[in-house]
Amino acid sequence: MRYSQLLIPTLKEAPSDAEVISHKLMVRAGMIRQLASGIYSILPLGLRVLRKVEQIIREEMNAIGGQEVFLPSIQPAELWQESGRWDFYGKELLRIIDRHDRKFCYGPTHEEVITDIVRREVRSYRQLPLVLYQIQTKFRDEVRPRFGVMRGREFTMKDAYSFHASEQDVQKTYEDMKTAYNNVFKRCGLDFKMVEADSGTIGGSFSHEFMVLASSGEDAVVFCDACGYASNLEKAGARPPANGTGSDGSEPLAEVSTPGQKTIEAVTTFLKVPPQKLVKTLILENEKGLVAGLVRGDRQLNPVKLKNLIDCEWLHPASEESIKEQTGLPVGYVGPVNLPLPVFADHEVAAMQDFVTGANKTDAHFTGVQFGRDLQVEQVGDLRTVEEGDPCPHCDGGTYQIRRGIEVGHIFILGTKYSTAMKAGFLDENGKEKTLVMGCYGIGVGRTAAAAIEQNHDDKGIVWPAPLAPFQVVILPTNYSDEKVKDAADTAYRRLTELGVEVLLDDRSDRLGVKFKDAELIGFPLQLVIGPKNLEQGEIEVKTRRTGESANHPFPAILEKIPAQLSEL
Amino acid sequence: MRYSQLLIPTLKEAPSDAEVISHKLMVRAGMIRQLASGIYSILPLGLRVLRKVEQIIREEMNAIGGQEVFLPSIQPAELWQESGRWDFYGKELLRIIDRHDRKFCYGPTHEEVITDIVRREVRSYRQLPLVLYQIQTKFRDEVRPRFGVMRGREFTMKDAYSFHASEQDVQKTYEDMKTAYNNVFKRCGLDFKMVEADSGTIGGSFSHEFMVLASSGEDAVVFCDACGYASNLEKAGARPPANGTGSDGSEPLAEVSTPGQKTIEAVTTFLKVPPQKLVKTLILENEKGLVAGLVRGDRQLNPVKLKNLIDCEWLHPASEESIKEQTGLPVGYVGPVNLPLPVFADHEVAAMQDFVTGANKTDAHFTGVQFGRDLQVEQVGDLRTVEEGDPCPHCDGGTYQIRRGIEVGHIFILGTKYSTAMKAGFLDENGKEKTLVMGCYGIGVGRTAAAAIEQNHDDKGIVWPAPLAPFQVVILPTNYSDEKVKDAADTAYRRLTELGVEVLLDDRSDRLGVKFKDAELIGFPLQLVIGPKNLEQGEIEVKTRRTGESANHPFPAILEKIPAQLSEL
Repeated sequence: MRYSQLLIPTLKEAPSDAEVISHKLMVRAGMIRQLASGIYSILPLGLRVLRKVEQIIREEMNAIGGQEVFLPSIQPAELWQESGRWDFYGKELLRIIDRHDRKFCYGPTHEEVITDIVRREVRSYRQLPLVLYQIQTKFRDEVRPRFGVMRGREFTMKDAYSFHASEQDVQKTYEDMKTAYNNVFKRCGLDFKMVEADSGTIGGSFSHEFMVLASSGEDAVVFCDACGYASNLEKAGARPPANGTGSDGSEPLAEVSTPGQKTIEAVTTFLKVPPQKLVKTLILENEKGLVAGLVRGDRQLNPVKLKNLIDCEWLHPASEESIKEQTGLPVGYVGPVNLPLPVFADHEVAAMQDFVTGANKTDAHFTGVQFGRDLQVEQVGDLRTVEEGDPCPHCDGGTYQIRRGIEVGHIFILGTKYSTAMKAGFLDENGKEKTLVMGCYGIGVGRTAAAAIEQNHDDKGIVWPAPLAPFQVVILPTNYSDEKVKDAADTAYRRLTELGVEVLLDDRSDRLGVKFKDAELIGFPLQLVIGPKNLEQGEIEVKTRRTGESANHPFPAILEKIPAQLSEL
Repeated sequence: MRYSQLLIPTLKEAPSDAEVISHKLMVRAGMIRQLASGIYSILPLGLRVLRKVEQIIREEMNAIGGQEVFLPSIQPAELWQESGRWDFYGKELLRIIDRHDRKFCYGPTHEEVITDIVRREVRSYRQLPLVLYQIQTKFRDEVRPRFGVMRGREFTMKDAYSFHASEQDVQKTYEDMKTAYNNVFKRCGLDFKMVEADSGTIGGSFSHEFMVLASSGEDAVVFCDACGYASNLEKAGARPPANGTGSDGSEPLAEVSTPGQKTIEAVTTFLKVPPQKLVKTLILENEKGLVAGLVRGDRQLNPVKLKNLIDCEWLHPASEESIKEQTGLPVGYVGPVNLPLPVFADHEVAAMQDFVTGANKTDAHFTGVQFGRDLQVEQVGDLRTVEEGDPCPHCDGGTYQIRRGIEVGHIFILGTKYSTAMKAGFLDENGKEKTLVMGCYGIGVGRTAAAAIEQNHDDKGIVWPAPLAPFQVVILPTNYSDEKVKDAADTAYRRLTELGVEVLLDDRSDRLGVKFKDAELIGFPLQLVIGPKNLEQGEIEVKTRRTGESANHPFPAILEKIPAQLSEL
């Protein structure tokens, strides 16, 4: 392809709303343009990159027996009402009314549509397992879209759904998906981790996320430096303490006056005790009412862990009003002693003695509180958010590391959540009606490309991993109107094309500095600089974008070696 | 691919709402399933076909310098207000309100979005011409969606847009597009015609449609049997009559009583004259008021021709109330003599003498009307709809044929309609600001596949042109559990795959009759039937779907000849 024929509107400045580097660089390199908040047009260079991600995904999905389909973006409300998500999904679901006043939505995901197809077309266990996938546009009406295509409203996603006769069978496909996803991100040239995740609101029993490690990532990735266990922050398990906090539990329960001391910091300073001697009491609300969660004063309560321990449908922090109304307790002084609510305690709290808590009375705390003696709890469990350096619960001697990551893929075992709600069944070997077991598996296409940039860039621009580069090689003639230079550039272009290399010939009449800057900004893995002086020596210059290394090589012989060089990048 | 692993839900019966054969067969062959009115899920076999159409289009677009982009489906109202189409488009435009109460639409086309991008990114004549295209989902909220994917609401379209410094330059790209479109439909194996078309409501000066000939087509295609001129019905020009109707114009104008005779049929019977002796007077309405159009009694007025002759923004038949209110004339007895409206006459009328018309009086007609003597008109022009057998105006001796066709592509020269409205300009060689000249070019992807079926089917099912077939070859083992048959089938599958043939192995345990029926229904171009008896003779059977011819061939030697056989289909 010739540069002069392509629309590559590079920019010196990033748009003012661009916060992360991938957003800045995708706009500056002329890959994308914003049409409206969270809605982007993909320009030629950007599309070349997305298509590469898509093709890699397609090949890996096909390799595990996935069948590609293409499901509508506009979905009837009835299906979402059947699954129960029409009301549940809230404002993120873009609701639409057609000319006949029928209700639809722009699909943010396709569980309902695919389950509807399968319940109509699949009758027998002999048609199972079935793995269907698509690469399709989704819409999620985020409150605050940001980060360019990383968290857009309209975006391209690969979503796959699998249908099975049994839990064992979905496990098998789940393992295949793990392999396929690992292959996809490896082939994209990314440094990533597969981490355990909570299955969250999508439902289901088991889930893993694929996280590209990058300091700009919105998520925290926890992993053990010894055994390799990895998880996202909300799912990462804490090792229960081997023993207590060193106190002997000899202190008596005593009420102390703590006027105006409502926070952990205030109380520890006022009472001159370390936060490790305090127990934090957090009041949350779920569909059954209020509950209390206890963690050590220097820890964070992990609401996902508490939700899973309680096994409730939803759980969020209770408002001050709600607490006052339902219990009459003074916020800031709540504690577990004689608390008229179900109390759940973190393992660490259960090992504590002689600790401080609120006295359920304004301006008062208890000291010398003894777990067991002074308070009873509903259940003890792993309730805290882990921290860097925590001992790994999965091996001996390993400790947790925490890095930032960008979620590019997520796989779930859904179980029968959707198939039960939508009555999707099949006949087993004995002719008995059974409920289909499902899995679902997503990859953000644009997000994968953006994550690749977050992980591969420098101050000059993007440094594409070769498999995702819009072109693998750019030819930079120092002066394309010089006959000899032009001949050599054209020869290089032709020969590399014949060799199967995707090459862009910068045939523009712009100053060489402009062309170099654009080449660095866009981030082609290899630059071939062709100028009259080198040509006189029978050479051209080959520069590697990632290392910045450049060297002269005999021309045209070097062309034959380019494919091998690329495969090493 | 193995049949048992693919979701191909073939059906014996077509859905009751399916009117055309392509809709019936696409559903029966398990290619598509309806999700909602005019909204279809594309299943694996269907997607394979659509992807082939897309790939052919992509290659031909790239060959003429097209650059692929991917524009959002959700578009802000502001752009449509700028072009003036937000109000104009009516209910076919699916309007959407997001969570922040901003107005959007699901794009039925992308002139506004692409013009917005180009006006921001293109500054200089040196960046022109520019040809951008995408293959993207559109939504048009049709009142009565029908014919499956042929006239759906959500559908896939290739739309291209070109930007130019001059009218001459857009002409060049327009010619390139003609070539590309001809290549696309030829490569799809279709029998089609490129026809002149009116540019209609999309605006612009020049346009051609690509029509696949099929008796089920919604459109009429007119073409000359001698010179090859082709047009759609509304655009086809009529040759003006060489001379008059044989009357000498000697009759005097006379009013005759025609009580209750309001139609052409009634008047001709009542007065015992042929319809060729009558002149029909039709009253229409446009933005300036009422106008009258005259055609011979046996002809149809072509409103598109009249609109173009008048050069008005819109034109439609006036209602009886509107005629009565504005002129007081009795509908059924209106005529051109002393008519207080601008009158436009077809060429044939201008050559008539001694004719009959309404007398602008209830229950009365004039006879002996002379064109010129008794009535004056604003303008004479080509106003009638042509008919089969009409003389071709473009050559000597040729006559018009009329066939039914399905519009699969449409190309337009838009001129500056959108670029003027949206202020999309560039600087020319002299640094002067000028307005961009545009063209736009569409192909319906699903419609092309459906049209291929309309043209290629028999009572057993689809007869795919090889380039569009979901698989080119199906292997039909008579009994896949027979070891020798299985070995041969597997060998054939492996070898053909190696030879680059797309092959489906029907490994199902179903009865052979079921497998044969499915193979015929789906329409794979070649069937390889492998059974124990033939194998004993060292042979297999090769059957051509289109002709039904089958013959035994030595196995495995025949496999090597399959690619050549396919290229001839």
